[in-house]
Amino acid sequence: MSRSEPYPPTDPTAVDVQQVLDVMSRANEISSTTESQELLEQMLDLIIEVCGADTGTMYLLDAERHELSFQLVRGQVREASLTGMRIPEDEGIVGAAVQQRRPVVVEDLASDPRWSKIARPQGVVLRNTIAFPLLLRGRPEAAIQVFNFRKKPLHLIQMLGNRMIAEYEKTVLLQTSRAYGSKLERLLKLMTQISATLDKDRLIERILDEAHRLLDAEGVSLFLLDDPGHELILHSSKGEHPIPEPVVRLPVDAGIIGYVVRSGEVVCLRDAAGDPRHYPEIDRLSGVTTRSLLAVPLRMPDVIFGQERGITEGRIIGGLEAINKQAGEFSQDDVLLLSSLAQQTALVIYLSNLYTEADELFVNTVRALVAAIDAKDPYTEGHSQRVSEYSVAMASELDLPPRVVQQVRLGALLHDIGKIGVPDTILRKPDRLTAEEYAEIKKHPLIGAKIIESVHQLEEIVPALAQHHERVDGKGYPLGLEGENISMIARLVAVADTFDALTSERPYRPAMNLEDALDIIRKSAGSQLDARCVDAFFRAYLKGKIKLKSGGLTNE
Amino acid sequence: MSRSEPYPPTDPTAVDVQQVLDVMSRANEISSTTESQELLEQMLDLIIEVCGADTGTMYLLDAERHELSFQLVRGQVREASLTGMRIPEDEGIVGAAVQQRRPVVVEDLASDPRWSKIARPQGVVLRNTIAFPLLLRGRPEAAIQVFNFRKKPLHLIQMLGNRMIAEYEKTVLLQTSRAYGSKLERLLKLMTQISATLDKDRLIERILDEAHRLLDAEGVSLFLLDDPGHELILHSSKGEHPIPEPVVRLPVDAGIIGYVVRSGEVVCLRDAAGDPRHYPEIDRLSGVTTRSLLAVPLRMPDVIFGQERGITEGRIIGGLEAINKQAGEFSQDDVLLLSSLAQQTALVIYLSNLYTEADELFVNTVRALVAAIDAKDPYTEGHSQRVSEYSVAMASELDLPPRVVQQVRLGALLHDIGKIGVPDTILRKPDRLTAEEYAEIKKHPLIGAKIIESVHQLEEIVPALAQHHERVDGKGYPLGLEGENISMIARLVAVADTFDALTSERPYRPAMNLEDALDIIRKSAGSQLDARCVDAFFRAYLKGKIKLKSGGLTNE
Repeated sequence: MSRSEPYPPTDPTAVDVQQVLDVMSRANEISSTTESQELLEQMLDLIIEVCGADTGTMYLLDAERHELSFQLVRGQVREASLTGMRIPEDEGIVGAAVQQRRPVVVEDLASDPRWSKIARPQGVVLRNTIAFPLLLRGRPEAAIQVFNFRKKPLHLIQMLGNRMIAEYEKTVLLQTSRAYGSKLERLLKLMTQISATLDKDRLIERILDEAHRLLDAEGVSLFLLDDPGHELILHSSKGEHPIPEPVVRLPVDAGIIGYVVRSGEVVCLRDAAGDPRHYPEIDRLSGVTTRSLLAVPLRMPDVIFGQERGITEGRIIGGLEAINKQAGEFSQDDVLLLSSLAQQTALVIYLSNLYTEADELFVNTVRALVAAIDAKDPYTEGHSQRVSEYSVAMASELDLPPRVVQQVRLGALLHDIGKIGVPDTILRKPDRLTAEEYAEIKKHPLIGAKIIESVHQLEEIVPALAQHHERVDGKGYPLGLEGENISMIARLVAVADTFDALTSERPYRPAMNLEDALDIIRKSAGSQLDARCVDAFFRAYLKGKIKLKSGGLTNE
Repeated sequence: MSRSEPYPPTDPTAVDVQQVLDVMSRANEISSTTESQELLEQMLDLIIEVCGADTGTMYLLDAERHELSFQLVRGQVREASLTGMRIPEDEGIVGAAVQQRRPVVVEDLASDPRWSKIARPQGVVLRNTIAFPLLLRGRPEAAIQVFNFRKKPLHLIQMLGNRMIAEYEKTVLLQTSRAYGSKLERLLKLMTQISATLDKDRLIERILDEAHRLLDAEGVSLFLLDDPGHELILHSSKGEHPIPEPVVRLPVDAGIIGYVVRSGEVVCLRDAAGDPRHYPEIDRLSGVTTRSLLAVPLRMPDVIFGQERGITEGRIIGGLEAINKQAGEFSQDDVLLLSSLAQQTALVIYLSNLYTEADELFVNTVRALVAAIDAKDPYTEGHSQRVSEYSVAMASELDLPPRVVQQVRLGALLHDIGKIGVPDTILRKPDRLTAEEYAEIKKHPLIGAKIIESVHQLEEIVPALAQHHERVDGKGYPLGLEGENISMIARLVAVADTFDALTSERPYRPAMNLEDALDIIRKSAGSQLDARCVDAFFRAYLKGKIKLKSGGLTNE
């Protein structure tokens, strides 16, 4: 039979005042650490020492599961054979101490039927034990069991144990708070980087990478609503088991992510597979069994444009989902982290689309207007668009920076805009032009430049319009500029313009065949045309970037 | 003379084991709080009780200034007469205890020359005292002094004091970490809101408001570099003493903020006024004496556009400055908070400018091309621009949403674009047109619609082009649509178009005078023109939004 002594049984022979004060002093030293594991180890060592015991173990109480989970073993036996062990909170001698909220002393372990076969350190003969709960605000939060004690200063070790758990709680709170602060700092830094990424694909890749790291999840996926809002498109997936290509589409009423996108709610589950909303198809595709899951909507906030453009109302554009937290479950901190990331992502995706659209609107509108002007003369229909495409192909060969390539695209597109100022009768004249008529035609570079000059943001492309009929040998018009005095953009446009004119039908001659046209371009290098630009033209041509199509040449 | 006893002088008559253990238990209870002030108060109460003393005070050691700063007084005398008091770390009895790193007992205060006239609680006769340092990792961090003790369990109170300071440190660390976490959370939320604000003025106001709150500063100012980069413009200033209008300009080589903008460094000063870089002019303008200061550069990160648009390199566009932290000095946490805010601000200011520029580029380019087309016919020069301005004035009167107003602006600007497809000879004909010629002219609405149709983002303004010659009585062209079957934009444009045509000279008639033109518009309501739009026209006219200028009418 076991013998448990009543509590508190301060044994005056076990400790004296000086010893208690010394122990307090030791405990003070130990508690100066802010590292929780170190704290537990040193405090347990102190308790073992105070009892003159051989060894000791510590358990944390998992109140939700009513279990004691093994935390550490110290003393003569330090092996980790107990690691990961969990026992019911009322099992064994340590369970009894937790239930009774006071120390249980067993002088002869062998005869105690509560002595568990599981929770025993290996490698030493265990004769006796003291088990006691660690109480925080009167409630057991953990338990300690020492073996082969020689003294039993129960009151003292109870006080030490209670102090230990209080200190442990603060240390863990501090560690958690600091770890959370670090994650917030990382997220904060990330937010600015995200906002600076208007390239959608790169943005999504970045977000998933970071969400994966911040949440310590097995996988993170991003779903975007398609345009009519019927389907969710999995745009990318990160983690150890990414969902394979091709792109996966889900009906918007399927799965937990569908629920999140429709309802705007956050869903955080310990066991997603057991949830009726779970869509098993995803697990089949990825080969991963979903356990824990955190899904948040991608909700774009209201965007304030100001002035006359007002406010664009926020809406949900998709969802972000993390599955299988590596350790434990997704926490409220995780919810905040993923939600912040999701909101910023939604916003930047919206802004990125806005840029692309503004860009397209501008280029397409200019293209439409230019095409309409070209179309006044049936012989020049599509001319400006082709010249723009050829010029861009050449500019890429010259490795010009993106900003300049954009100027080339626009300058070439607008190069003949001055023809608005030339009477239709001259432009459409089927016969050869008179000298006066030709003089009228020759005005179009400067008329074009004048039209575009009024737009200050286009000032860098004005030379493309003004100088595209200049020749590097100085024999061009309107100014007779030479060589590098002619802007790079104008020299590029001149090559493209000449090539398109040669290969197009004219009122006074048919289209030239390709070989003859190429030959003329080649021979014009250094006289009419800039040699470097001609070189770029041929490189682009040989790479197939400038191609012949029905009736003329066109870029693919 | 004073009598200080050697340490440790555990007085066995003062305490027994049971009392020590009970005190430990009480200390455990007290230490379960995570609130630092509460912890200090309760621990000091316990120490006073253990000594059977009347009252006690506590000081924190300011190691940098070598001072003891009064923290709290408990016991019979609780008044706050000592609040804010600081004494040299070696002054008085408490100073002696700190210097000697052990308790100092004075049995007869009156005869002790160290007894300070300052550091004495009022309202009670003080006979004796124990002063002792609170040691953390062997170093004094604080001190306690109790008065009118009846017992002197020096070892016990020393242990309690040491524990108190260790617990206090952890509690303060936890509080600081949590407060910092809350600030990061607020900043995180703010970042998304900032990114969603593309209205620069509103953005700046928001940033300054939040920086003010986050940093607990007396004032926060934002400086932006002007275009050539020679001056810093103070765009706004928040706080109790905002710098008065008009806008302040600083040479970029002046002041601490100038240094920050030029060097890209963060500057954090306890005493800015004593810094040689300080620019006293600012203090004079604001009427605030700058003490502590934190200034960070507004550094725009690299912006990744992707595709052909590449990466825009980051640069410094200004600086953000906070002055006079309300309590203490600016910390490293403040540096992180303000830097994050500054970086996001720089980025959003850049993006906001980018939007405005993209918008301006588009509208100005379309305007230039349309003006060129109008200019083919000297009688219609400036027509489309005027029609656009009148239409926008009317749209505002109808309180149409910003998106629709933008469509009105653009639709009106482009309404006659189809005239590109009408031969110049007809457009410029000085005589009355023949029936065939008039039939050609009547094609321009559909030609214009066809040109613009190819730009899918402009599909909503196509009706403005196609239907601006329809009449609400169904007698217009090309389709003879009636009333509300004609799009709102087209009905608005029709009023503006008619008014401009009437008030402009034509080849076949002079410009009509204003009263006659207004009369015709008024009488056309319900037959040619939409009554609601005519109403909006007159409201805009009466408010002066539509004004007569030399030779014609123009909006200001």
